[in-house]
Amino acid sequence: MLAIKRDKKSQHVSLEWIFQRVFYLKCPYNWLIGSIYPCFASNALVSHTENKPQIMSLVVVGSMAFDAIETPFGKSDKIIGGAGTYIAWCASNFTPIKQISVVGGDFPESELAALTARGVDLEGVQIKKDEKTFFWSGKYHMDMNTRDTLDTQLNVLENFQPVVPDSFQDCEFLMLGNLVPAVQRSVIEQLKNRPKLIIMDTMNFWMEIAMEELKKTIAMVDLLMVNDSEARQLSGEYSLVKAAKTIMQMGPKYLIIKKGEHGALLFHGEKVFFAPALPLEEVFDPTGAGDTFAGGFIGHLAKTKDISFENMKTAIIVGSAMASFCVEKFGTQRLREISKEDIDARLAEFVQLVNFDIDLV
Amino acid sequence: MLAIKRDKKSQHVSLEWIFQRVFYLKCPYNWLIGSIYPCFASNALVSHTENKPQIMSLVVVGSMAFDAIETPFGKSDKIIGGAGTYIAWCASNFTPIKQISVVGGDFPESELAALTARGVDLEGVQIKKDEKTFFWSGKYHMDMNTRDTLDTQLNVLENFQPVVPDSFQDCEFLMLGNLVPAVQRSVIEQLKNRPKLIIMDTMNFWMEIAMEELKKTIAMVDLLMVNDSEARQLSGEYSLVKAAKTIMQMGPKYLIIKKGEHGALLFHGEKVFFAPALPLEEVFDPTGAGDTFAGGFIGHLAKTKDISFENMKTAIIVGSAMASFCVEKFGTQRLREISKEDIDARLAEFVQLVNFDIDLV
Repeated sequence: MLAIKRDKKSQHVSLEWIFQRVFYLKCPYNWLIGSIYPCFASNALVSHTENKPQIMSLVVVGSMAFDAIETPFGKSDKIIGGAGTYIAWCASNFTPIKQISVVGGDFPESELAALTARGVDLEGVQIKKDEKTFFWSGKYHMDMNTRDTLDTQLNVLENFQPVVPDSFQDCEFLMLGNLVPAVQRSVIEQLKNRPKLIIMDTMNFWMEIAMEELKKTIAMVDLLMVNDSEARQLSGEYSLVKAAKTIMQMGPKYLIIKKGEHGALLFHGEKVFFAPALPLEEVFDPTGAGDTFAGGFIGHLAKTKDISFENMKTAIIVGSAMASFCVEKFGTQRLREISKEDIDARLAEFVQLVNFDIDLV
Repeated sequence: MLAIKRDKKSQHVSLEWIFQRVFYLKCPYNWLIGSIYPCFASNALVSHTENKPQIMSLVVVGSMAFDAIETPFGKSDKIIGGAGTYIAWCASNFTPIKQISVVGGDFPESELAALTARGVDLEGVQIKKDEKTFFWSGKYHMDMNTRDTLDTQLNVLENFQPVVPDSFQDCEFLMLGNLVPAVQRSVIEQLKNRPKLIIMDTMNFWMEIAMEELKKTIAMVDLLMVNDSEARQLSGEYSLVKAAKTIMQMGPKYLIIKKGEHGALLFHGEKVFFAPALPLEEVFDPTGAGDTFAGGFIGHLAKTKDISFENMKTAIIVGSAMASFCVEKFGTQRLREISKEDIDARLAEFVQLVNFDIDLV
């Protein structure tokens, strides 16, 4: 079913595909094309990596979107959002990224250029110049943990069929941001070699309308990320420890349960690790915090190329630290400002926050 | 006002007081009297410590009660409960305790004997043989964080006027379990020398009916313990970080905010420390978990005689570990069963739960 869809897609874009192929041959800096001439980067099916060294890489799949956000503290205009965007802005602090997504012709070229400048390869980002970018609008309640969706316009996401460029076949770490489960699965199926680690984020929406599809995709990944209520919904268990056991029987060897301001839990077999959220004076906008967490987590793993449980503990702290920046301002703004020194200082705060000496007992 | 009440009390018990004085002179093991003949230990105002070495001690003030508990997993008979009871059962794992409380004639002598055998000095426990012990009945919701009170019978607590025995004047650590704020304050005022550390637990009920009284007592303590919703109510701030700052301006230099299954935060000036709750497969009965946490916290501090912020970090982990036992069975049952080995093993689980290596970043 998915294969057929991909075939149809390939036929549909064949002329554009040929044009790109020619253009790419002329320009070794193909990522630059994606930023300066973003429309040329869409559905880039060219195979141009034969002459390049195969650098194992982090591939990120996720939406790139416009958001309009209301919180008890303020209201944003239509700003840049989307799971893929947050993951990229965050993970690019640690490692280069190969991005798979789709945007409309209304998506600012400057935004793509900014990501490219951060080391995000946009060859896998389709730009549908005659369509509009995915739009979401929501309003947060006082507790900042619950929100109402005011508007959702799928636009380019409605028929999104991701295409993995040949140059992305070196994928060592795959981060599947929240998307239609079948779309996430399609990326896994397009990869010729299984990555070292596949991480998947998802949400309750898919549990309600596509549980069987969701379970098929979950069965194919190494690590699943959900929040606490989603873990309960997916497993039918109230206890998070029981929920974790049930979910790990569905396929993933690792499970991260995100609890927002209450931190996150990492499960693997009988092992469990807990990372708190940094207690903040103000949470300005929680949008993208979960995606940023995911970006920090996989960014650290990809940078260190170590997928041991011990290193995942560090990665979950890195994810928590990055998420604590994300919520300080609207959208991706804070993520764009921070430096390595800011990140190091925040990580040191986490050490202080949870480090204790048990020898005294 | 309180002084007058105490005077009245002293007159009221004068005959009993004389009897006790005589009896105590005959028996050096006065704590034994409290268990074998508990009625004799009530209002023990005797000064019998002149010839004993002054061992600095932990004094615990709190209710000793009967509870009837309903949870989604079961229903208890009328069982032993009360903040003071839980604190004593827990803290006695770490240090001897001097207990201040009140019970009725219906409180089982065997229970008092069991506490005495744990090293709990009951000289400060008044036994009103013609009255009934405080009774509370409640029903927990599925999330185990919220509960409905089904019945409250104050009984002996209605006119409880704590009396600090002379032998308790060596108090170095004072743990004020949740009680009428004026009663808690009365104990502080009866102590001739200020303890090294005064810790106070309280609850939303007093914020609703006696906020000014409560604030007077809070102003006199070193460390306040409340849960997250109580911290918000007391401070009028939603952000827990802001709430902590506001509350610390009311007097206490330290603040612990308990978040149930989401752990606990310790604040001191600009410093903050977080301890998670152990993720448990089943929370059977959360009654007394907060009191047990308090008992572990002050028990560790009293044992190590170190009230530095660094040692408080360890103490909060000890408190969390002890609370994780408490919720495994109804009432105080689990606290009665556990050994030092059980506690050590649980503490090791906490190290695994939160310990990470940030050098890799």
